Amino acid sequence: MISVVIIGKGNVATHLYKAFLNADGILVTQINSRKLTNIPKANLTIIAVSDDAIAKVSSKIKNSLVVHTSGSVAMGSLKNTTNKGVFYMLQTFSKNKKVNFSDVPFCLEAENKNDYKLLKTVAKSIGKKIYTLNSEQRKALHVAAVFVNNFTNHLYKIGNDICEENKVPFKILQPLIEETVLKIKTLSPEKAQTGPAIRNDKKTIKNHLELLNKEQQKIYKLITKSIVNSIK
Amino acid sequence: MISVVIIGKGNVATHLYKAFLNADGILVTQINSRKLTNIPKANLTIIAVSDDAIAKVSSKIKNSLVVHTSGSVAMGSLKNTTNKGVFYMLQTFSKNKKVNFSDVPFCLEAENKNDYKLLKTVAKSIGKKIYTLNSEQRKALHVAAVFVNNFTNHLYKIGNDICEENKVPFKILQPLIEETVLKIKTLSPEKAQTGPAIRNDKKTIKNHLELLNKEQQKIYKLITKSIVNSIK
Repeated sequence: MISVVIIGKGNVATHLYKAFLNADGILVTQINSRKLTNIPKANLTIIAVSDDAIAKVSSKIKNSLVVHTSGSVAMGSLKNTTNKGVFYMLQTFSKNKKVNFSDVPFCLEAENKNDYKLLKTVAKSIGKKIYTLNSEQRKALHVAAVFVNNFTNHLYKIGNDICEENKVPFKILQPLIEETVLKIKTLSPEKAQTGPAIRNDKKTIKNHLELLNKEQQKIYKLITKSIVNSIK
Repeated sequence: MISVVIIGKGNVATHLYKAFLNADGILVTQINSRKLTNIPKANLTIIAVSDDAIAKVSSKIKNSLVVHTSGSVAMGSLKNTTNKGVFYMLQTFSKNKKVNFSDVPFCLEAENKNDYKLLKTVAKSIGKKIYTLNSEQRKALHVAAVFVNNFTNHLYKIGNDICEENKVPFKILQPLIEETVLKIKTLSPEKAQTGPAIRNDKKTIKNHLELLNKEQQKIYKLITKSIVNSIK
């Protein structure tokens, strides 16, 4: 039996806690990061708090192996004097949406092989996709995730705005959005590109710009330029 | 039996031709747009050529109802003297990839009810999702499609570039990409937004910018600004 303490009450902490409750071989406790006076002993202590609070919370923990769950914080930012590691799950966690952990990539980092082995066993108790990334790689992945998740979602918002302004149902675009994702399962995004920018079709680009507001135009122009620059 | 002539030999024309071959009640012929001397009579003539060639090709057709398949060309750009319409399918058509027409939204426009009814019958012989859009709405939809498809795909490319530079497998991001799409089936893109920009988390944004090249930085900054501006 591996004992795990999760510190934090946010989305990541709570989804993780629930998953461990149903996992074989894991004994899990969840505690509030504001009540750190009485931390139970555990084989693994997972700090799932906001990035800014990781250093402070970790400084108060005496357990043997302490990890955080952040994509953008280096392992070295942990301030416990015992062993350190990272247990980063690359997924968006929403409060009311069930997480299917077998789809979630676990990106693990540790200071030595035994700790890594422990992290891997714990991750495998709830998940399937396990990766080893160092802090630099994880940082890069986190930035890439902002592009493919947050920024992509903002492009969906702009698409939605344009549709609403013109009384076009946004759901017409859903199959195209899904096809865009399916395509890059078999083609690189570079090879999957279509549309006026990659054809450098100046007439269509001009017509499109006329339909947009200033902020939309700026984004349209900049990404179009970047697509044109990517033509080899 | 409805007779259909498709003019063009590109991806749209060819996928459409193959679909009609298997459709009930449709008799289809495909002809090359460069051989317009002998166009067969038909109830419906579908011009599936590049935007720039639509006017010229349509001027040579005497059949009763002539439509084009472009998202960005107005119905009025057709130069036939008989009835006009639009038969626009919002999907990316690739040469070697089978198209599932039951997922494809058909956006139809016609000058009168009878023509519209004919277009709808023809669309329903291969598809399921039928929408009525006028030329202005279709133009807006086409621009929105560039944002959610071409521009989104370019963000995938940037994510891929960042991963490659740091020896991180891009496939780690695939579940997140799929989750981003799934989310907007139940939430508006505005409500689905997460990440450093919507939190206005300046520290993370600064850290991210340090990892990017100049072109990536420009895009990161502009979209982040646009997300921050969208906070109400």
